[in-house]
Amino acid sequence: MDRKIRIGIVGYGNLGRGAHIAVSKQKDMQLVGIFSRRKLNIDALAIPAKIYATEDLDSMKEEIDVLILCGGSATDLPTMSPHFANKFNIVDSFDTHAKITEHFAVVNESAQKGKKTAIISIGWDPGLFSLNRLLAEAVIEGQLYTFWGKGVSQGHSEALRSISGVRDAKQYTIPVAKALEEVRSGAQPELSTREKHKRECFVVLEEGADENRVKNTIISMPDYFVDYDTTVHFITEDELCDNHQGLPHGGHVIHSGKTGLDNANNATIEFSLSLDSNPEFTSSVLVAYARAAYRMNQEHKTGCMTIYDVPPYYIHPDSREELLKTIL
Amino acid sequence: MDRKIRIGIVGYGNLGRGAHIAVSKQKDMQLVGIFSRRKLNIDALAIPAKIYATEDLDSMKEEIDVLILCGGSATDLPTMSPHFANKFNIVDSFDTHAKITEHFAVVNESAQKGKKTAIISIGWDPGLFSLNRLLAEAVIEGQLYTFWGKGVSQGHSEALRSISGVRDAKQYTIPVAKALEEVRSGAQPELSTREKHKRECFVVLEEGADENRVKNTIISMPDYFVDYDTTVHFITEDELCDNHQGLPHGGHVIHSGKTGLDNANNATIEFSLSLDSNPEFTSSVLVAYARAAYRMNQEHKTGCMTIYDVPPYYIHPDSREELLKTIL
Repeated sequence: MDRKIRIGIVGYGNLGRGAHIAVSKQKDMQLVGIFSRRKLNIDALAIPAKIYATEDLDSMKEEIDVLILCGGSATDLPTMSPHFANKFNIVDSFDTHAKITEHFAVVNESAQKGKKTAIISIGWDPGLFSLNRLLAEAVIEGQLYTFWGKGVSQGHSEALRSISGVRDAKQYTIPVAKALEEVRSGAQPELSTREKHKRECFVVLEEGADENRVKNTIISMPDYFVDYDTTVHFITEDELCDNHQGLPHGGHVIHSGKTGLDNANNATIEFSLSLDSNPEFTSSVLVAYARAAYRMNQEHKTGCMTIYDVPPYYIHPDSREELLKTIL
Repeated sequence: MDRKIRIGIVGYGNLGRGAHIAVSKQKDMQLVGIFSRRKLNIDALAIPAKIYATEDLDSMKEEIDVLILCGGSATDLPTMSPHFANKFNIVDSFDTHAKITEHFAVVNESAQKGKKTAIISIGWDPGLFSLNRLLAEAVIEGQLYTFWGKGVSQGHSEALRSISGVRDAKQYTIPVAKALEEVRSGAQPELSTREKHKRECFVVLEEGADENRVKNTIISMPDYFVDYDTTVHFITEDELCDNHQGLPHGGHVIHSGKTGLDNANNATIEFSLSLDSNPEFTSSVLVAYARAAYRMNQEHKTGCMTIYDVPPYYIHPDSREELLKTIL
């Protein structure tokens, strides 16, 4: 076996913590350290590891094979990914769908300059969901549906917390069961926003806040809630703490296709995820594609890549020969 | 747009017929002809096309970009694929799992000699199921389960027809609902053969044949039925004709994984297919990977490949740039 792949993790929020744990499970990887802008205490880590300041990376080019960038898409990754991509092989989970082309271009320029390999927009959506959308569309004509949930939407939970009178809150996105059923039947329904997903809110009020006003503010909130059937539950802080601390998520990519003469036959392709921990899973995907970034760079495949560019065997620790024997 | 990809189809059983229809739906492909060892009449075709004898291929090297080989894995493909792989780019659906390494080696030698690209073992299992097994295993630790059905097993149907007193028969393989449920729950059960699948047989008897003898022969048949809960229905030839002429199939690849410290969180990854026509779907996958074989050969990526070696964007008709914008 080759020497271990030397990994650096940049950022230590939920995603960085998940990546840290996932790297520790890989036989072919070795963690060089956690890199953070804020002062991190060793007690904050999931498992013991070396902690560095992000600036320390400037002098550590030769000690790290791949950087896993665990920043956010809104403000961190747009600068972080191009900044590091000419010195390190990187993977990121950039998930602002509308700006992926732009992000790709700047990261590509940087990676090409440094002859490094950067794999962007890795996770489950974008990521494994994107890959399964491509597979389905390439194979048969049909109608593609993506459902998210049941899971916690951080953006919607924050929208709830921004309402005056709300002390804390958690929002779940839930696919509508009837819609899933219709799509799986091959009926190729046209579904409105409301017909696809519903939203469930668990809200802790400030003392003296008016339930009715808060509820009406929520269900009429543009973009976030008004186009959905939204249920609001008022609960105590203890209940929120006991029952809603996790970050579960998941969803379904369903391609309702047709095969044969006159498209006479149904063919339904479905890819589903059910995750107790969204960040732990997302970071596990990042870790697998960090392996690919390293291997592709070893073979001089440089520049910016997405999940569509990576031959699948690069992400699995076993050799190509072994995979033919065991799981093909 | 580049010129169309020129396709030849070799063999015209269910798979060749499916490939013929699937190719006719591709905007970037053009069918050169159907190549057959037996005398094919134009009336036997799904849609009009040129018919050639297989030997005609010797002189048509320059006229065809990819050959889709639609022979069987038992006797056709082991000789057909290496025979053609040094003159043409090929795709095949070789599905004898135990012999894939061997098949890979001979096809690779031939393709390397001719600087051609061969993609073998394409379809859904091996094929899309294999790809999803790899993705799941690479991303998280866990227990991998493959369920087949509900669908017609041709091998088991033939086993039924080989019993004296049986005029005709059809066998369905069906996943056991309780097993699916348990696996999806994250319980990681150990399942015996009997616990995973059951078998349902629809049998038309010869006149005067003894129901009890036939039924006992079926349910005690080694390898095929004895290890399963098998139900036998005796029906008329008309009923078989009216209700059991299709070749539906499908199944589920489920990876029951764990994430986080001490593997405390469940993560379930599931890929499912539900197909009215197994051969039409399998051949649609072949057609998509024929596109990849052509494109990879254009870029001098030669030799034998499997689904694990193909960067996914090669199978989709849209450009890499377009895919980033639309479905990533």
